[in-house]
Amino acid sequence: MRQIKTARPCGIIRGMHSLATSVRALTFDVFGTVVDWRRSVIAEGQALGARTGLQADWAALADAWRKGYFASMAKVARGELAWDTIDALHRQVLDHLLPRFGLQSLGEADRAHFNTVWHRLAPWPDTVDGLTRLKQRLTITTLSNGNLSLLVAMAKHGGLPWDAVLTAELFGRFKPDPAVYLGAARLLGLAPEQVLMVAAHPFDLVAAQKVGLKTAYIPRPEEYGPGGPMEAVGDAVFDIVATDLVDLARQLGA
Amino acid sequence: MRQIKTARPCGIIRGMHSLATSVRALTFDVFGTVVDWRRSVIAEGQALGARTGLQADWAALADAWRKGYFASMAKVARGELAWDTIDALHRQVLDHLLPRFGLQSLGEADRAHFNTVWHRLAPWPDTVDGLTRLKQRLTITTLSNGNLSLLVAMAKHGGLPWDAVLTAELFGRFKPDPAVYLGAARLLGLAPEQVLMVAAHPFDLVAAQKVGLKTAYIPRPEEYGPGGPMEAVGDAVFDIVATDLVDLARQLGA
Repeated sequence: MRQIKTARPCGIIRGMHSLATSVRALTFDVFGTVVDWRRSVIAEGQALGARTGLQADWAALADAWRKGYFASMAKVARGELAWDTIDALHRQVLDHLLPRFGLQSLGEADRAHFNTVWHRLAPWPDTVDGLTRLKQRLTITTLSNGNLSLLVAMAKHGGLPWDAVLTAELFGRFKPDPAVYLGAARLLGLAPEQVLMVAAHPFDLVAAQKVGLKTAYIPRPEEYGPGGPMEAVGDAVFDIVATDLVDLARQLGA
Repeated sequence: MRQIKTARPCGIIRGMHSLATSVRALTFDVFGTVVDWRRSVIAEGQALGARTGLQADWAALADAWRKGYFASMAKVARGELAWDTIDALHRQVLDHLLPRFGLQSLGEADRAHFNTVWHRLAPWPDTVDGLTRLKQRLTITTLSNGNLSLLVAMAKHGGLPWDAVLTAELFGRFKPDPAVYLGAARLLGLAPEQVLMVAAHPFDLVAAQKVGLKTAYIPRPEEYGPGGPMEAVGDAVFDIVATDLVDLARQLGA
């Protein structure tokens, strides 16, 4: 993922009125778009530290873990690593990182539990309200690289009212592979242009757009913490730009 | 599907107390177990007849349509028919049946809409309450031969609060192929014995049981109408027998 510190969210709103009638389903990126992974990982890390007496820079660990997740998926995409679930890839990355953060003494049970922090990520404050409104009029589903069991656990934990849980795992490829977006549209029984991909990350939206999906960009400027980096939008143009999921619902008349 | 008119539901309840702690997810058969397909198809047929002036034995059509659905799936399983969604198979069967019921003059728009009656099936009276209770403590998901978009539409129509929508479509095989049950357990991140298959049909439960899933039998004596046939249980033994989904929740302590 390209991250450019100075990038500001921008984009052009186009075709919104027709979208509100033509779009039938919304597919949501999850990590960062729907849930605040960084704050949740830091909070559980701090609680783990308090309980075990181990000290670490939990924010830096969270960022390194997330970076390692992207690197692992890229290795899978290049064929350097066998396909595996995100739970498994997260665990490999975590085991690799712990010594660097002075946490090599962490036992198996604590490692296994901490690894599932990704099942317990907190929604952004607008998420549940926005999804609940959108669900009244449209089909709402995940379209995440997270594995299905992770996404189901997260939905139960955070009260996310998905109509369906779609994931890269169903297609054996990770986003931004086109097979994931097209596979989701096929399972939903829709043409690509009837599906709106919703994400905080331009790379995800651009990939969806290339195979015909409509796109909604929801910048999450605090995904990497206050003042943290955001991926550059560059010259990408999205169908909708919304400040959060409640704003998205409003723009779609839901 | 074997159907023996005189069969009465029976079965032995075993291991219920350990099940309540070991089972983590419930996979539900849908047509007949969760929704009353026959009454719904008849009601929409009657409304269609009233609107178009066409008369037919809608109950017989519903039964023949359902029978044709099983025959089509069997052809796919034997390799005589290419894999397709249940929506597509339902339509082929419907087109084949209409002349027999004096409905050959039905136009394309009416056929297409009537074919999606399977998206609008009414839940049994206990269904929503039972699922809502079970969902508090356990993961609840469909495991139907119906395609994903059909199941999502049905859930929105009937207010079925699934945690996930799993379907034979994800595996390119229909139940009772073992790949469907094992695939569901894998996606749920569970061992087969942590998954409880819930169905009104012994053939479905026996197939699930063969690959290690636990089983709950919910007889639906009115699936084929009052006094209608029920599939024989034979010498099958299930982990749980419950009168309906609220009773199932009670037995599982949910």
